[in-house]
Amino acid sequence: MLPADVADYIENNRERFLASLTELLHFPSVANAEISPHPCEACADWLAEYLRGLGLGARVLPTAGQPAVYAESPAPPGAPTVLIYGHYDVQPPEPLELWDTPPFEATLRDGRLYARGANDDKGQLFAHLMAIEAWQKAGGGLPVGVKLLIEGEEEIGSPNIEPFIEENRPLLEADACVISDSEFFADGVPAITYSLRGLTTCELTVSGPSRDVHSGVHGGGLTNPLNVLAKLVGSLHDNDGRVAIDSFYDEVLELTDAEREAWAALPFDESQYAADCGVDTAGGGEKGYTVLERRWGRPTLDCNGLVGGYTGPGDKTIIATGASAKLSMRLVPNQNPRRIFALLEKHIQDRTPPGVHSSLEFRAGARAVMLNTDSPAMTAGKRACEEGFGAAPTLIRCGASVPITEVFQRVLGLDSVLLGFGLPEDRIHSPNESFALGQLFGGARASAAFLGEMAGTKTGENGT
Amino acid sequence: MLPADVADYIENNRERFLASLTELLHFPSVANAEISPHPCEACADWLAEYLRGLGLGARVLPTAGQPAVYAESPAPPGAPTVLIYGHYDVQPPEPLELWDTPPFEATLRDGRLYARGANDDKGQLFAHLMAIEAWQKAGGGLPVGVKLLIEGEEEIGSPNIEPFIEENRPLLEADACVISDSEFFADGVPAITYSLRGLTTCELTVSGPSRDVHSGVHGGGLTNPLNVLAKLVGSLHDNDGRVAIDSFYDEVLELTDAEREAWAALPFDESQYAADCGVDTAGGGEKGYTVLERRWGRPTLDCNGLVGGYTGPGDKTIIATGASAKLSMRLVPNQNPRRIFALLEKHIQDRTPPGVHSSLEFRAGARAVMLNTDSPAMTAGKRACEEGFGAAPTLIRCGASVPITEVFQRVLGLDSVLLGFGLPEDRIHSPNESFALGQLFGGARASAAFLGEMAGTKTGENGT
Repeated sequence: MLPADVADYIENNRERFLASLTELLHFPSVANAEISPHPCEACADWLAEYLRGLGLGARVLPTAGQPAVYAESPAPPGAPTVLIYGHYDVQPPEPLELWDTPPFEATLRDGRLYARGANDDKGQLFAHLMAIEAWQKAGGGLPVGVKLLIEGEEEIGSPNIEPFIEENRPLLEADACVISDSEFFADGVPAITYSLRGLTTCELTVSGPSRDVHSGVHGGGLTNPLNVLAKLVGSLHDNDGRVAIDSFYDEVLELTDAEREAWAALPFDESQYAADCGVDTAGGGEKGYTVLERRWGRPTLDCNGLVGGYTGPGDKTIIATGASAKLSMRLVPNQNPRRIFALLEKHIQDRTPPGVHSSLEFRAGARAVMLNTDSPAMTAGKRACEEGFGAAPTLIRCGASVPITEVFQRVLGLDSVLLGFGLPEDRIHSPNESFALGQLFGGARASAAFLGEMAGTKTGENGT
Repeated sequence: MLPADVADYIENNRERFLASLTELLHFPSVANAEISPHPCEACADWLAEYLRGLGLGARVLPTAGQPAVYAESPAPPGAPTVLIYGHYDVQPPEPLELWDTPPFEATLRDGRLYARGANDDKGQLFAHLMAIEAWQKAGGGLPVGVKLLIEGEEEIGSPNIEPFIEENRPLLEADACVISDSEFFADGVPAITYSLRGLTTCELTVSGPSRDVHSGVHGGGLTNPLNVLAKLVGSLHDNDGRVAIDSFYDEVLELTDAEREAWAALPFDESQYAADCGVDTAGGGEKGYTVLERRWGRPTLDCNGLVGGYTGPGDKTIIATGASAKLSMRLVPNQNPRRIFALLEKHIQDRTPPGVHSSLEFRAGARAVMLNTDSPAMTAGKRACEEGFGAAPTLIRCGASVPITEVFQRVLGLDSVLLGFGLPEDRIHSPNESFALGQLFGGARASAAFLGEMAGTKTGENGT
């Protein structure tokens, strides 16, 4: 239910909304940046202040890492309470030289706002703030209770969020949860995501001689840690694109025939997808599965970064002291991030040859989530999508991770509605990330409609 | 034959010699440094001026890369001519933070001169310049004709030296050649090296998507170039430490029983060697060979550098656009550097999966060399070693490459005497490279003695 006054308010305040979002995008709030004072703190303070300006009670809450922002507006009598989750931290902007305009100076071009976080997740989050303001100023106040939780460590795997949720359980009690940190299936094809992959991230280090040594004098005498690192990382896949870690697939929830049929019917062209990503073919993954199946429903292992030895211009013929690889695994429902880490650790230990040492550091883990697709909140989400964007959503899965979704489900018993406003072409996590203004304002309308729709549901009927 | 006056001159001019060597070590003459004007040019000019000061005709000669320095003093009637080769270029000094004192400000500590190039090869070369000066000033002039060739690209594999030698063939005609760019077997155990490994260096690049993309959204959909790079590099060795490239060993000159017996009898402790290099064991190489056999007589493949994707602090969950690996292979007699490169290229091409591109860039190649061990020049070298250091040399092989040695043999028909003055503990190619003063002055005496010994040989009797 989207009152015309609320929709008009959103439309009539476009410039001011964009100016505020630009302010929010100005903070280089990369959670693991080594900067003091940390830009995440300033960004959290800005958000709390902004939310107070919308008439909500807001405060910055400490976690074991970057702070979270919490805000609330009490429920009108008999109305349910909606928890809105978003995150204000962003991916690192590197490589900076590939940005057409500076990543933390939002720039409007051709109907898109370019900045790190323009979509993920500051832009999507901001659509909800616009909806809240519109209800407050033009809709006679919020029709439901609203709680906001805005995290500062989502992009590093939310390593501290689970104890935070457990400690703040009463604060977060709600009848429904909406998260906008996902995307449309395609431009013009809205989607609600009903499953996200989990992840385990870690760093593998192989160390050898105590100093870089001459590879002529010592080549053959010493085990070369770079040769070993490559062999170890190379051993993690077989030639059919499957992860070659023992027992890795043991708990994998297999795709259902219904899912495979539904996804095959989606308007997805693998050749076009490959071309969009700048490659000849997307045909290099796990054998026996389509590209969508591999991205949405199968676990993967990716090396995200590799470094060791001499990397300057020309050659330096050395056996270097060591090398490291950043690894991340995307997990599907039923896989346990810690167990998967232990399997990888054993794989590495078993294959590390004499003459070098290897170590694997656990960084972050999150379980995959599978959400209830026919709750009243999901029905509200579907209607809100139509009201905001003029088209009914497709139900899809997504290969990315929003770790808190599974924590909300497991710890709070609260299934989320993943109402994504992004488009696949937004280049999240890449240089020149952007967010289409049509999606931002459509997202604000959909968020406002969702709150309106939720007002018609009864307290307590959205639990799992 | 080392006249007492010549030996005394060397001893009496220690301070001045060290001051001049310190000047020479001040040039950051890294051949592939991207600096303009290039420090190699300044270093070559300094050397030509210094040699003119010793009474030699000296000039800087252009090559297709960094210049070479050539100098000569005509042979006295009936005396042979000795060609002395050295190189003034040095390995890159990185990582700078591991140096106790700046790499291009030579520092004397505990009887050692610390600097990049202190041993390799400015220090060893300088021993010959000291010997030349001593003969000129205190020995009644040089007893033989002397030609000096000082190269500026040895550390990058002498990519331009062969055409240079061919073009300057008449200039380089000589009866014997001595090169000091190798080392003792151990402190107190002088050695003459009769075989050096060759090498092929190259860079492997794997490229994938046109931009870094989200590894959650796209993981499984796209072939990950870092996964592929690791698998390709990892595929270059089998689990027995052998190079797993088809036909790689086809032309390898096998070790003789005599060599294996002689090396087994050398005072070499594999455990001590491992400890000196800071590793638990040196037991990780090609099965079936001892450490010395693997370092001196077997071909190897080492990854010298690896880089790709996100390498900053923390995590960035991306599939990166590409990655690269610097690779070098040390070759033994009869292996052809270009043919070996072609075998590697085929190996890579055959194993590159769909969805990424791989390319292998040839950088430099040099053939291994096996030298005549009983020429008159070799006899002169053995005697010079005793006169300079008071101990007869052991005949050894070395795993490193001095590419010109094989070019001199093949193009000029001239076998070199590899009279090394370095010690294994000098950390060449590593941070804190140094050269023991005892080796510098012993080297100068040995060089002077070599010229004296050569005066007693006849012109033309040293050819191969």
